[in-house]
Amino acid sequence: MKTKGDIVIVGAGLAGSLLSLLLQKRGMNVTVYEKRSDPRSAKIGEGRSINLALSDRGIKSLKLAGIFHEIEPLLIPMKGRLIHQENTPLKEQLYGTDGQSIHSISRSTLNHKLIEAAEQAGVCFEFDAKCESVHVDQTALHVTTKGQAKTVTADAIIGADGAFSIVRSSLMRFDRFNYQQEYISHGYKELSMPSKGGEFAMSTDHLHIWPRGSFMLIALPNPDKTFTCTLFFPYEGVESFESLTDEASINTFFHKYFPDALDLIPNLAEQFLANPTSSLVTIRCSPWYKDKCLLIGDAAHALVPFYGQGMNAAFEDCCILIETAEQCNYNWDKIIPTYSNLRKPDADAIAELALANFIEMRDHVGDADFLTRKLTDARLHAAFGLEWIPMYSMVTFSEIPYHLALRIGKLQEEILTTAQQAGRLDDLAYCMELKQKHTAARKLTLNH
Amino acid sequence: MKTKGDIVIVGAGLAGSLLSLLLQKRGMNVTVYEKRSDPRSAKIGEGRSINLALSDRGIKSLKLAGIFHEIEPLLIPMKGRLIHQENTPLKEQLYGTDGQSIHSISRSTLNHKLIEAAEQAGVCFEFDAKCESVHVDQTALHVTTKGQAKTVTADAIIGADGAFSIVRSSLMRFDRFNYQQEYISHGYKELSMPSKGGEFAMSTDHLHIWPRGSFMLIALPNPDKTFTCTLFFPYEGVESFESLTDEASINTFFHKYFPDALDLIPNLAEQFLANPTSSLVTIRCSPWYKDKCLLIGDAAHALVPFYGQGMNAAFEDCCILIETAEQCNYNWDKIIPTYSNLRKPDADAIAELALANFIEMRDHVGDADFLTRKLTDARLHAAFGLEWIPMYSMVTFSEIPYHLALRIGKLQEEILTTAQQAGRLDDLAYCMELKQKHTAARKLTLNH
Repeated sequence: MKTKGDIVIVGAGLAGSLLSLLLQKRGMNVTVYEKRSDPRSAKIGEGRSINLALSDRGIKSLKLAGIFHEIEPLLIPMKGRLIHQENTPLKEQLYGTDGQSIHSISRSTLNHKLIEAAEQAGVCFEFDAKCESVHVDQTALHVTTKGQAKTVTADAIIGADGAFSIVRSSLMRFDRFNYQQEYISHGYKELSMPSKGGEFAMSTDHLHIWPRGSFMLIALPNPDKTFTCTLFFPYEGVESFESLTDEASINTFFHKYFPDALDLIPNLAEQFLANPTSSLVTIRCSPWYKDKCLLIGDAAHALVPFYGQGMNAAFEDCCILIETAEQCNYNWDKIIPTYSNLRKPDADAIAELALANFIEMRDHVGDADFLTRKLTDARLHAAFGLEWIPMYSMVTFSEIPYHLALRIGKLQEEILTTAQQAGRLDDLAYCMELKQKHTAARKLTLNH
Repeated sequence: MKTKGDIVIVGAGLAGSLLSLLLQKRGMNVTVYEKRSDPRSAKIGEGRSINLALSDRGIKSLKLAGIFHEIEPLLIPMKGRLIHQENTPLKEQLYGTDGQSIHSISRSTLNHKLIEAAEQAGVCFEFDAKCESVHVDQTALHVTTKGQAKTVTADAIIGADGAFSIVRSSLMRFDRFNYQQEYISHGYKELSMPSKGGEFAMSTDHLHIWPRGSFMLIALPNPDKTFTCTLFFPYEGVESFESLTDEASINTFFHKYFPDALDLIPNLAEQFLANPTSSLVTIRCSPWYKDKCLLIGDAAHALVPFYGQGMNAAFEDCCILIETAEQCNYNWDKIIPTYSNLRKPDADAIAELALANFIEMRDHVGDADFLTRKLTDARLHAAFGLEWIPMYSMVTFSEIPYHLALRIGKLQEEILTTAQQAGRLDDLAYCMELKQKHTAARKLTLNH
């Protein structure tokens, strides 16, 4: 059978392996080049986060690929945040107003499943195959496999090779390629919280947050009954990675700010000193393509992790690329610019949302005024359904394009602040009236 | 005599050659590596602008280097803009309120003079010497000269290698290096206007501007009695470089928008088709250094050309670096971070000013309300002296740090707009009162 074309994907991470499966199933002949060894036989790591939060956009994409039934049993649902305030009882903040959850999943298990399924569908994976550069004019990839250099050509080359994409480096050599890499002042460090008496040491129904103003600790459950805790913390300053350099200072710090976590992680200081500190970057570029070479996922738009949308956005990229391919009748000259123009505003929006959510998580979730607004936000949704969806729900539990979720969500937040200042936060009809007025003024409509 | 240290500079352009001269004169042993051939014997070009506008910051730096007396005879003073409106007599807009001028100078002549002077002072120049990378940990430069690779070490390495700096590429490999390259939607094309009957074809006292809203033509005089005209024009759209592809369309376009220029450039369409279209980029990065490797000039902060400050800012970089070096007693571990922290806000400010001035030049200079505000701006300076200096004068004719010039200038522009809306633009005392009020509120002081 003649295929619909030869597609080369660079990177067998989450986006690359899912996209390979989707394209192969639609009749393309897909080869994936991955610089690392086969993750199914090698150990993973390299400072990447151990678990991730899968939500609706990601689930939709896994369903499109026909693989969600294999993933579903591996998920640990988290129905809300559990806030560990200092000297205060734990407080729950539900994520969904309709009983929805986000789902903790192991990055490596998910990646293995995706590669496995793609291979079974006929995708050819070449591991230990380092992309050296892309020869855009010829849609050709220069790759080195076990010391041997070779050049492969294709109908399209898709760079799914992550935040430090080599494919993107090749696009960057062309004139008028806009590019930005922007690090935040905080880094992160992962710490493992063991199980306790054979059981989870804390509630598994939640994503745990210890908000501390300028920094925070979070924890997500793993299937082996451990938690992966992550400290987001400034690199420099009085209280910073720079200042915590020995067991004494680490223990003093955790005792002061996170005493309950310290109690549950016996070898905390040892882990702290042994584990790497990783940086957090936002990457923006445009165009995402040149001729028939396209970037997707982190290679096009790396996010900070605070909205839990990095993987979900990358999976949605795959979904939208496939929908575009079908609309464009698998003509890659058309697909690539059409997809990029459609998707770029959404990537910019989720990048902005992800940066803003760090402030919300580390600071606002412990603030009484914020919680009061949040309550009205939920009550408005209960009363008015789809006419008022909280921003978090639009991002996490809907397919509303990110750029619209951002615009509508900002409007709603402005209205809640106005209502709060006017002492009318209980007046749902007033809030809804404001929304209708401004929605018309800003010509905001849900075109999806 | 023992020197104060070995300094390697990458790039023998304007910034690199001036800095080499300044450092050598202060007792350092400077070597400059330049990938191109010696510009004194080779032809220049590569799409770089032919002439530049030298103003006070640049002049101060040339004086510090003891070379201004050699440059001064080569300058053509331009006391203001001469505005070529459609179907309107030419209008003059003076730059300085105190009779100051900016000065047209040939980039290549200036560069030759600087290299010449630096060589005479003892700087060693290696041409055809391509910087491959910097080994930051060892303050070592990998360079290829005539096919031979070699590594040189120094007490400090300074990357003055322009917007597409190789030194910067090496710094970029380190974690947490922030970087942005941002192209505007316009490109530029240079066209040469010949002399007419052995004389300049237009007034030499001015920088000529043909403002046309979304695009513009400008012209600067050259010592050989020609003008270099530059068209700043969108890459894409109905009227764009994309749409002007043959002699007929080019002539029609110039006949419609720039008939007087067309009359003075006999072979315009031919030049238009033969000359390159160049892009316009702003480059921002931070930090500007790693250990003892530092970026200056365009390598650290490439600007769009619309404020005429690219060269002046780069020369001021050299001046401030020298001042910092003296304050830090030639200890490069101290000089480099001190200089960078001091100078970075100024580079960000001039980048912003340069982008904003494109709108002013191509559009506002033809606007009656703008001209009325501009008149009051000048009258305020005449009446209040240093208490009210127009923004253009602060940037061009003063040494007020760019970041302060930007903040003070923005405040003044707000005040002029407020006064205009209130119909009180003639009331100088009212404007000054507003300025004093807001200056105190914003804690704006001229610390320079």
